[in-house]
Amino acid sequence: MPTQEHMHAVVHSYVRALNAADLDAIVALFADDAVVEDPVGSPPKKGLAEIRAFYAASVAMQLEVELEGPVRAVADEAAFAFRVSFPMNGQRMAVRPIDVFRFNADGRVVQMRAFFGADNVSTG
Amino acid sequence: MPTQEHMHAVVHSYVRALNAADLDAIVALFADDAVVEDPVGSPPKKGLAEIRAFYAASVAMQLEVELEGPVRAVADEAAFAFRVSFPMNGQRMAVRPIDVFRFNADGRVVQMRAFFGADNVSTG
Repeated sequence: MPTQEHMHAVVHSYVRALNAADLDAIVALFADDAVVEDPVGSPPKKGLAEIRAFYAASVAMQLEVELEGPVRAVADEAAFAFRVSFPMNGQRMAVRPIDVFRFNADGRVVQMRAFFGADNVSTG
Repeated sequence: MPTQEHMHAVVHSYVRALNAADLDAIVALFADDAVVEDPVGSPPKKGLAEIRAFYAASVAMQLEVELEGPVRAVADEAAFAFRVSFPMNGQRMAVRPIDVFRFNADGRVVQMRAFFGADNVSTG
């Protein structure tokens, strides 16, 4: 079971790596057999090749990410609210997801699910 | 599939019912076969009798609940961050969970999972 400290650190590393557009650092947080469902309800990305391709497209968008409130880590999972903004067609778009990470025994993220709907997307 | 509007409304009803200590209104949001895991990693409460007993203990604590940020509703699930405070031994305790609700086709909550760890509990 990962410690709460470890899960907090991974979430902060994830936010840092997204802001730095550091694709290697993002992918390094995930287990080989990880599954990413972003947003919830969309076809899952399975394994590091699909996950890398997904985040390559994300970091190309020049994301600015900041946590909203504390990370909630318990058992082998962590949930966190955040705000991500990026330029699009001369204005800025903002999305406010809640992500849930599940960790494996090695402390890698083995499942990621991102909760956000149309209501959570806005300009500015 | 429940609408995003419906899921938002249920979350707001849940917060209102917790603040009003309205046990019937809370339980009415759940499906007969619902499972409540609060916090994540604890033994789940299964079915309305166990869920009612769980919330009876909660509302007896005179909870004050407020959402932190928007509800994130997508597919058949909703995630939301909130702060709950209550009196204990002459001071106030505060907990900042993130809950995830999964809905059935009738729009009732069929699974609830509450994410919070020791780091998310404080005085004040």
